[in-house]
Amino acid sequence: MANPSILILAGDGIGPEVMAEVKKIIGWYDAKRGIAFDVSEDLVGGCAYDKHGTPLHDDTMAKAQAVDCVLLGAVGGPQYDNLDFSVKPERGLLRLRKEMDLFSNLRPAQCFDALADFSSLKKEVVAGLDIMIVRELTSGVYFGEPRGIFTEGNERVGINTQRYTESEIARVARSAFELARKRGNKVCSMEKANVMESGILWRQVVQEVHDKEYPDVALSHMYADAGAMQLCRWPKQFDVIVTDNLFGDLLSDAAAMLTGSLGMLPSASLGAPMANGRPKALYEPVHGSAPDIAGQGKANPIACVLSFAMALRYSFDLGAEATRLEKAVEKVLADGVRTADLMGPEGGTPVSTSAMGDAIIAAL
Amino acid sequence: MANPSILILAGDGIGPEVMAEVKKIIGWYDAKRGIAFDVSEDLVGGCAYDKHGTPLHDDTMAKAQAVDCVLLGAVGGPQYDNLDFSVKPERGLLRLRKEMDLFSNLRPAQCFDALADFSSLKKEVVAGLDIMIVRELTSGVYFGEPRGIFTEGNERVGINTQRYTESEIARVARSAFELARKRGNKVCSMEKANVMESGILWRQVVQEVHDKEYPDVALSHMYADAGAMQLCRWPKQFDVIVTDNLFGDLLSDAAAMLTGSLGMLPSASLGAPMANGRPKALYEPVHGSAPDIAGQGKANPIACVLSFAMALRYSFDLGAEATRLEKAVEKVLADGVRTADLMGPEGGTPVSTSAMGDAIIAAL
Ligand SMILES: CC(C)[C@H](C(=O)O)[C@@H](O)C(=O)O
Ligand SMILES: CC(C)[C@H](C(=O)O)[C@@H](O)C(=O)O
Repeated sequence: MANPSILILAGDGIGPEVMAEVKKIIGWYDAKRGIAFDVSEDLVGGCAYDKHGTPLHDDTMAKAQAVDCVLLGAVGGPQYDNLDFSVKPERGLLRLRKEMDLFSNLRPAQCFDALADFSSLKKEVVAGLDIMIVRELTSGVYFGEPRGIFTEGNERVGINTQRYTESEIARVARSAFELARKRGNKVCSMEKANVMESGILWRQVVQEVHDKEYPDVALSHMYADAGAMQLCRWPKQFDVIVTDNLFGDLLSDAAAMLTGSLGMLPSASLGAPMANGRPKALYEPVHGSAPDIAGQGKANPIACVLSFAMALRYSFDLGAEATRLEKAVEKVLADGVRTADLMGPEGGTPVSTSAMGDAIIAAL
Repeated sequence: MANPSILILAGDGIGPEVMAEVKKIIGWYDAKRGIAFDVSEDLVGGCAYDKHGTPLHDDTMAKAQAVDCVLLGAVGGPQYDNLDFSVKPERGLLRLRKEMDLFSNLRPAQCFDALADFSSLKKEVVAGLDIMIVRELTSGVYFGEPRGIFTEGNERVGINTQRYTESEIARVARSAFELARKRGNKVCSMEKANVMESGILWRQVVQEVHDKEYPDVALSHMYADAGAMQLCRWPKQFDVIVTDNLFGDLLSDAAAMLTGSLGMLPSASLGAPMANGRPKALYEPVHGSAPDIAGQGKANPIACVLSFAMALRYSFDLGAEATRLEKAVEKVLADGVRTADLMGPEGGTPVSTSAMGDAIIAAL
């Protein structure tokens, strides 16, 4: 049987640097644990635009569809800010999400003990925090039609469409309930059912799926504005949060920042099972391309490394190996190894991106 | 000349209780400062539905259009949760905003010194915080058509439309720039121009208004998800934030919660000048109807009192009187007078809603 396959799309900014450390770790698994992957690499985002005039070449899209999973670094940078909307770096990422139909975006917001002091929140509010935000990723206002900038009378009008079908809501709800069963068994669904009909449908369908298929899971509903408040006030009240594409974008970013561990947070974007039983999948750090520190060896590779751990768990059913990698990261942090973003006011000497990768491998 | 007129819509939950204190203060201004208002009262929200079968009767709407300003308490409660969308309490509020064309919603997020310990954020992150969020209030996905729940094939589809015209964006941008000139002279505009065309138009128009009319104000742009992060990380980087209706809903609620002073925060919703030169205006606390504590004399009336202070300033050009009232509130807090929501872990005895109102009057 062929090895499981991974397509690496390191992308822009710090993407290639943090991905280099993941490649080392993939090498370690092959050499030391006899777990081998077929790794290929390609371009996405600004670097793909520079080479091909498009942020995602059709050949790359075809490769992404053919592999067992995609690992992505980050896309974007100021030099691409004035590109036409249709070829912006983000469009490459959005096309991958859409065409691979990765409807369920798992974004853990977790506070690492060694870093609890880093949060802008009080330590008691975040220490031990571990919530999972499940964001719908292939529909809603990100993809709804009609969309565009039109002329009406003598002025411009900008239009986007928020659009959710029953089955789109039901499938992401199911993935949230499934996850909850393996965690705290609690789901909070967020929308604006008080002002948006799409929110009313969201609430109804989540409730129906719950009542029919997951009556054992504790389900609550919250308006998204109240949800934003509650995340800031007492995030530990949540276990799994399920919400739409746009609310999920804001709420998961806020939650990630609150943990103080932004440079540490991975994400998984999952779709339907393929013929081999594995889900379509893309893994990427929550942080962006950080153009201000790109190319300086300062970036923290941990979010990208933990994204690979999620791949081990969700794509390759190697939960024990994922835990091994996560524990290695914890050990390194407990030992006080820190990249620049993890330096507290006490100071100390930060290690480079590649030294952090080496430390993780040593801990493995 | 007739006295300036105010329509009081106390609404549901704690609305009537907190508004009672404002009525006392209005009485004090008449008796002690010779500043008299013609005050009328009517129903909005659930209580209007109970009486008339609609959350805002046409007669009430007509009165709101005729007065110099509206003071609103709060709307909503669990007993109305299952009402049809078209008669939910919120529809009354949304109709007022829309028909009075209150396009500019000013939401100060301010941390009161006496309460800095109350925030879930570290004291140094919030102490002295004073930012102003200007939220577009009469357009966007709250009001765009088409909207509704439709049947397509054999499933339901929920649709809402995000829609902004150039002039809608320009007018709220102007109000943000005007405010900034009286404050820190800095505006940050937030949207999702990387994924939404309506966000691209938003960014362009804000920039155009800036370049033509307000080149002296420092303008920056931020994606709304990054904005949510930055508000949680270091809110003091902002002075005025301008954003659309839906992003403004989430971001202003998060910002309000971060201050630790939620029960303290007022808001003003302003429209175009009327024939008498005063802007169309509605003032309301940022907090909701808090059904869990309604009717118990526990609610904090300060947000509603400070909303009246905003009315003095923005509707009646009585800036000095507004400041007098704000200082009275500060004095009361400095003296340690606290409603239940303001009790720290040190404990102490909370005062009632009406005792807080009396204390403010005594301080006046
Ligand atoms: C880069 C951008 C298109 C993307 C999004 O808005 O979804 C990002 O913010 C994210 O959350 O993954
Ligand atoms: C009550 C509700 C309709 C309203 C809104 O969503 O605008 C509220 O959340 C607000 O922010 O004033």
